[in-house]
Amino acid sequence: MLATAVEQTKRPLPAGFIDAIQAYFGERCTLSEAVRAQHGSDESPYPTMAPDIVVYAQSTEEVAWIAKHCNDNQVPLIPYGAGTSLEGHVLALEGGVSLDLSGMDEILALHVEDFTATVQAGVLRESLNAALAETGLFFPIDPGANATLGGMAATRASGTNAVRYGTMRENVINLTVVMADGQVVRTAQRAKKSSAGYDLTRLFVGSEGTLGIITELTVRLHPLPEAVSAAVCHFPTVADAVQAVIEVIQMGIDVARVEFLDQQAVRATNAYSKLDLRELPLLLFEFHGSPSAVKEQAQLAQEIAEANHGQEFEWADRPEDRSRLWEARHQSYFAGLQMRPGSLASTTDVCVPISQLAQCVVETAEDLALASFPTQIVGHVGDGNFHVLMLLDPDNPDEWKESEQLNERIVRRAIAAEGTCTGEHGVGIHKRSFLPLEFGPEALSVMKTIKQSLDPNNILNPGKILLP
Amino acid sequence: MLATAVEQTKRPLPAGFIDAIQAYFGERCTLSEAVRAQHGSDESPYPTMAPDIVVYAQSTEEVAWIAKHCNDNQVPLIPYGAGTSLEGHVLALEGGVSLDLSGMDEILALHVEDFTATVQAGVLRESLNAALAETGLFFPIDPGANATLGGMAATRASGTNAVRYGTMRENVINLTVVMADGQVVRTAQRAKKSSAGYDLTRLFVGSEGTLGIITELTVRLHPLPEAVSAAVCHFPTVADAVQAVIEVIQMGIDVARVEFLDQQAVRATNAYSKLDLRELPLLLFEFHGSPSAVKEQAQLAQEIAEANHGQEFEWADRPEDRSRLWEARHQSYFAGLQMRPGSLASTTDVCVPISQLAQCVVETAEDLALASFPTQIVGHVGDGNFHVLMLLDPDNPDEWKESEQLNERIVRRAIAAEGTCTGEHGVGIHKRSFLPLEFGPEALSVMKTIKQSLDPNNILNPGKILLP
Repeated sequence: MLATAVEQTKRPLPAGFIDAIQAYFGERCTLSEAVRAQHGSDESPYPTMAPDIVVYAQSTEEVAWIAKHCNDNQVPLIPYGAGTSLEGHVLALEGGVSLDLSGMDEILALHVEDFTATVQAGVLRESLNAALAETGLFFPIDPGANATLGGMAATRASGTNAVRYGTMRENVINLTVVMADGQVVRTAQRAKKSSAGYDLTRLFVGSEGTLGIITELTVRLHPLPEAVSAAVCHFPTVADAVQAVIEVIQMGIDVARVEFLDQQAVRATNAYSKLDLRELPLLLFEFHGSPSAVKEQAQLAQEIAEANHGQEFEWADRPEDRSRLWEARHQSYFAGLQMRPGSLASTTDVCVPISQLAQCVVETAEDLALASFPTQIVGHVGDGNFHVLMLLDPDNPDEWKESEQLNERIVRRAIAAEGTCTGEHGVGIHKRSFLPLEFGPEALSVMKTIKQSLDPNNILNPGKILLP
Repeated sequence: MLATAVEQTKRPLPAGFIDAIQAYFGERCTLSEAVRAQHGSDESPYPTMAPDIVVYAQSTEEVAWIAKHCNDNQVPLIPYGAGTSLEGHVLALEGGVSLDLSGMDEILALHVEDFTATVQAGVLRESLNAALAETGLFFPIDPGANATLGGMAATRASGTNAVRYGTMRENVINLTVVMADGQVVRTAQRAKKSSAGYDLTRLFVGSEGTLGIITELTVRLHPLPEAVSAAVCHFPTVADAVQAVIEVIQMGIDVARVEFLDQQAVRATNAYSKLDLRELPLLLFEFHGSPSAVKEQAQLAQEIAEANHGQEFEWADRPEDRSRLWEARHQSYFAGLQMRPGSLASTTDVCVPISQLAQCVVETAEDLALASFPTQIVGHVGDGNFHVLMLLDPDNPDEWKESEQLNERIVRRAIAAEGTCTGEHGVGIHKRSFLPLEFGPEALSVMKTIKQSLDPNNILNPGKILLP
């Protein structure tokens, strides 16, 4: 693992603390070293920081019990879903209890006629879509990993479909949240809109388990598009590809998704997913709508791509071809890792206004050309969001240092362009130090006041989002 | 004015408090009785509750000064925009300072290429759209009144276009907010999405001036649709009209707006706006998109309407005919008032999941048939949101009492159907007592904790949203 500046500092556990948990949860808690290590690590490059105990909850009531127990004893409580965070969200920085919610995987209600589903926090996004198979509806938010919906809400996740369908911010209708003291809060009713009171739903969406623990949520569903069309297009340069996206968005073309892969990412994807894409910067478009609308929009996009030197605009109209392409895109993180066996990936996640995207990406590509380790750029460029995957040798501290400098350079550039340090991965541990720059001390102070007022003992995922 | 249970209880002003304001603001503050009365009333049926002084701010710095001054002296501070609230938002329940932001009416930046506009809080929605005239973009959120964008953000407003374009919740990108102690907070950057930190933007959107004072905001703009088509359709019964809407929404037809007017509302609109609509329950549809998409969607909607006994589906393809219809719809509040000269209106604003809409509207219509005063139903039914306008004799306390009972009945029915007491008007004074029912004590307690932590002296619009 990489040696980083972040170290675990455990809080002491009061006598009898573990005993009480064992008495309450019985076999659904464990002190096993392997299980604790698994729950103290994720897809981030940080070293494992194991919790003291792992607890498997099956109901909101059980979550409320463990929250109250931790709060009474001032012991950290860290929610755990599928463990797919890239930013160190589940690491037990101060030890304590890892609360595994993956067993809370029940779909509680499908209101097909209202386009809503109410689920427990541990339901996986692919499981929800499988359950929707016969309904004509789907849940569009698709981070690369098959994350839990609770985790996706907690990090305000998005993915390739956000251009058209929005992020978790727009697609969560209400939450059931357990507060630090064990109180159970229902944030809203199930109406599509409301002006009643403070928007607690969106306060908890993106709060990364630091203000409360999401145990249930109602999400918006969307009608499956009548027609879908996808296309791949290659470009001679990164700049041409990004310029094509910008013009597509600025024309108001109703694209459902538009993904960018640089030459290195295409190469990795070819190798990992057994494809034979041309190894040039690439855009992957998808259009949703009525047959005629899809045709019109796709035609316009193709014209713009070609005006920007796009080559071999290739349509994938058969569902199986599209699935193969998108599956490959969703695997790009793992594809990337394979390009340097044994490496760990550090990932950037900036998002900028679309007018700033070309300059940001092109300057980033110039930076990457000088890096001493392999890199790839992939991005949800229709939203102004792109990732740099930096493949690092875990035994080489110089690479970690260099990658952190590169990360900082990319983030500072994005913030200077009125952008954000994280478009969809969340802050976790890795982006904490950038929040003062992004928000200024006043907004950060408001965040700290809210955290302090709702979690006065700082037991909820301490050390995440806000630096101590 | 109506005699209600809500009474003004002024806080004492410390010696020198007014003098310091006069020294700072000079001629831009006034003790005039008429101006104070104007700032202590709105479009709600409540009696005027005048502030002690009215201050006209021209910059965020001036707002910060008056906030700090009020906080230091524990005097209430009430933001005032266009005075179009229907729920008593601007009434000085505890006296204090009315802060008129209408002079902060500058459009600070139009980023046409990013589809964003940054404006001062006092900019009117129609002024913003006028400034966008040559850009090919527009700002779709349209409450009936020509409200300020700051006020619209503060009440989480929406209107007829919300079906397709969302509400202020979805269309505010960032805010500049003055906190109770005068600190100036910028809630977010200008990127389309972000996972960085707590969503302060959406915490302040809908907080009705009780957590901070919005002085600037960046909003999302949308491309003007290439084609627009509107249609009017009459129905023999309320139930038929509502059922048609439900089927249109459940089919996933991409309607831009769909408005319902009951027979009484149609009559009022004919009289006020000099139209000759048939005096039957009516739906007003609008479709936005490419010419072929609009045609397809409109055709489907017409088929559904006709299957539900819709009559005389009448297209208004000429812009001037559409403008006339929508202008009439936006005037329906004032049209309603004219049906009983000298009356005051009390308005309900429930919003329910679409599957619950038919039953809610039909049962409401049955209630209204028994009312002793004239009523009308109008609604943004595509979102499950509808209003009952109750026209009351200000000198008849029995009517007020009866209207409050009717209001409560409608709200309780909506909440039982998983809906909300207010879809878009906000809580203000009028809906405070329903929040415990809608949210339960736990969520309400979280709201109170947040209010207390950010405004410990309770100076920001005290008595609104949360009951003391």
